[in-house]
Amino acid sequence: MKKARVEALTDAIVAIIITIMVLEFKIPATPHFDEIFDSIPELLAYIVSFGFIGVAWYNQHYMFYLVRRVTKQVYWANNLWIFTMSLIPVVSAWVGKFMTAVAPQLFYLLFFTAWNLAYLFLSKVILNEMKREDDQTGIKKIKNMCSYQFLISWKFPALIIVTAIAILIFPPSGLVFSLIEIIINGIYTTSDSDQLEGPDD
Amino acid sequence: MKKARVEALTDAIVAIIITIMVLEFKIPATPHFDEIFDSIPELLAYIVSFGFIGVAWYNQHYMFYLVRRVTKQVYWANNLWIFTMSLIPVVSAWVGKFMTAVAPQLFYLLFFTAWNLAYLFLSKVILNEMKREDDQTGIKKIKNMCSYQFLISWKFPALIIVTAIAILIFPPSGLVFSLIEIIINGIYTTSDSDQLEGPDD
Amino acid sequence: MKKARVEALTDAIVAIIITIMVLEFKIPATPHFDEIFDSIPELLAYIVSFGFIGVAWYNQHYMFYLVRRVTKQVYWANNLWIFTMSLIPVVSAWVGKFMTAVAPQLFYLLFFTAWNLAYLFLSKVILNEMKREDDQTGIKKIKNMCSYQFLISWKFPALIIVTAIAILIFPPSGLVFSLIEIIINGIYTTSDSDQLEGPDD
Amino acid sequence: MKKARVEALTDAIVAIIITIMVLEFKIPATPHFDEIFDSIPELLAYIVSFGFIGVAWYNQHYMFYLVRRVTKQVYWANNLWIFTMSLIPVVSAWVGKFMTAVAPQLFYLLFFTAWNLAYLFLSKVILNEMKREDDQTGIKKIKNMCSYQFLISWKFPALIIVTAIAILIFPPSGLVFSLIEIIINGIYTTSDSDQLEGPDD
Repeated sequence: MKKARVEALTDAIVAIIITIMVLEFKIPATPHFDEIFDSIPELLAYIVSFGFIGVAWYNQHYMFYLVRRVTKQVYWANNLWIFTMSLIPVVSAWVGKFMTAVAPQLFYLLFFTAWNLAYLFLSKVILNEMKREDDQTGIKKIKNMCSYQFLISWKFPALIIVTAIAILIFPPSGLVFSLIEIIINGIYTTSDSDQLEGPDD
Repeated sequence: MKKARVEALTDAIVAIIITIMVLEFKIPATPHFDEIFDSIPELLAYIVSFGFIGVAWYNQHYMFYLVRRVTKQVYWANNLWIFTMSLIPVVSAWVGKFMTAVAPQLFYLLFFTAWNLAYLFLSKVILNEMKREDDQTGIKKIKNMCSYQFLISWKFPALIIVTAIAILIFPPSGLVFSLIEIIINGIYTTSDSDQLEGPDD
Repeated sequence: MKKARVEALTDAIVAIIITIMVLEFKIPATPHFDEIFDSIPELLAYIVSFGFIGVAWYNQHYMFYLVRRVTKQVYWANNLWIFTMSLIPVVSAWVGKFMTAVAPQLFYLLFFTAWNLAYLFLSKVILNEMKREDDQTGIKKIKNMCSYQFLISWKFPALIIVTAIAILIFPPSGLVFSLIEIIINGIYTTSDSDQLEGPDD
Repeated sequence: MKKARVEALTDAIVAIIITIMVLEFKIPATPHFDEIFDSIPELLAYIVSFGFIGVAWYNQHYMFYLVRRVTKQVYWANNLWIFTMSLIPVVSAWVGKFMTAVAPQLFYLLFFTAWNLAYLFLSKVILNEMKREDDQTGIKKIKNMCSYQFLISWKFPALIIVTAIAILIFPPSGLVFSLIEIIINGIYTTSDSDQLEGPDD
């Protein structure tokens, strides 16, 4: 497929998902600051989700840069990843509305897990395509990615179980754990991932 | 016309149509799982519509890759296709809200038919343009497309009639039939459609 | 300025304006066809507005193709055109809701006029830039455009006055007149405007 | 990182933020002009915010044109800038709804300040990257930008304090001061910023 168009479609969808989350903020019905403070949990949920999408886009952008050919398999694996991500605004708004309740936090964790699995699946499909093309450099680079290493290790299921238990004890810890993971995944990226190109392209 | 800009406009519109459907999901008013289960029919309708758009975009992307020149005729045929598709979020939300009712399912089928006819019209206009340019390879490739073969055969009207009857007997079968068609159209694509290009464009 | 980015921004905004109009459709509260019929005036307004934007984008795309340099003046004239266009969804939804009332129809006409004037202003700014670059071919092509010819002639103010009078007599004629103008502007375009490029760009 | 994709993502988000603001306009519930007049404060707020984003995009576009490499630092600084900007529709709608109240105007000023600081931070990160690459021309051009000069001078904090005081005395002056600053920043731009490129790219 034409890589540039699949990237453009992905970028547009990611952009809309980010901004749709803002639509969930209600405009205060009175001209007083009090109502703004009521929106703080929603703002926190928005920050976490925004961070999530920023990290995920960064990784997807890197993988798509590396892969030579966007096949139908890659396209649909990418669509699956987009699909799970597209539900984040709803799930994020729910958790923002009921920050201290167990169900929304668990649901957020569930979607976060589904999205991570979709991302792992996309990585695997891209690796498969690279194997078919015998692109050893690409394979090595994908496998070296911090996010890939994390998702195939015992740390990923362990984190989910620990977060689930933490939510049952103190619900808001769901968002806190998510935030920690985002920061780690945002910081540890392979060194060449932000050195891809020179001027003008 | 500048093909890249028509493609960019199409991609942005498709991206927004997909994500607009997510806006139809209501955020549960209580922090309990029960309300989430109530959204399952809407989620199913969203999955079917998402799949539809994924398959349709794949085919449109392939045809636009093949056509050498986007003429005014192609532009407006593409706009007609976009127009019918732009109504999907509303129709999809309606069917999601009343999964077991006849009217929304028939309406969904009607729009699905209109959208398919608009797509067929777009294919015909592109074929015409190719004939004018005497682009025999392009003509052959478009005519070989599974979606084109399906839409010009007796199978397309037959499917619509069968689905309409099935809806009258058991309404939710409307979505089921649609899903089956999507999967078939998603799987059977011409072999070169995902091999269009090498690295970086 | 980088022409490709100004074009990309314009395309994304146009795409969102088109799809935002769909958000104005309310999903029927009951699973019956009756409520769908109530939406027919809104659908008509949507069709006219969609056609408007399709014609306008076609012309803007052609002018931006011709102009060599997108200067700050062109950028802000383009922003003004985008600004007036961005109000179309609200105005269009209002006219769709009260098809037979005078005020919404006049308001629609007012915005249609403002948008056309913004477009004429954009044309003039582009012509100025072309004069500065002594691009005689460009100047000639812009001046030959049907939309430009129409807007600088007596026909444009005449049409507005006639439409305004027609609205006072029979309100829905506002949309009808608009539709006629769109079709004329859509059909009469300079012959090279859809022959801009060959394959792949 | 691939500069073109970060730019495309930014453009799509900016486009959506602009058009989301239009969604805040309520469609009048009656077919009379009176209700339109009630929307005038909201329209004013929209005009100011639209202008803001137009000026900011212009400057961001120029800085991204100059920088050779979009590193992870630049990406996240850009994300921070996008994040603050993404809240403008909500803040803008609030100020539009209660034009004469102190709290919304101060809140608008607060966000305006945060957004400017995020922009200054982005400039600094880009300057850092340019230092690392020893790109003296780039550094000089960024430092010469009117918006950069303004933000690092005493004029920026002075303007905020003066505006805050003015809001306490006469709330609507908040928007007026903002508008003045936009116009100044829109007019005074470095002379080469709109001369970046020749035809077709």
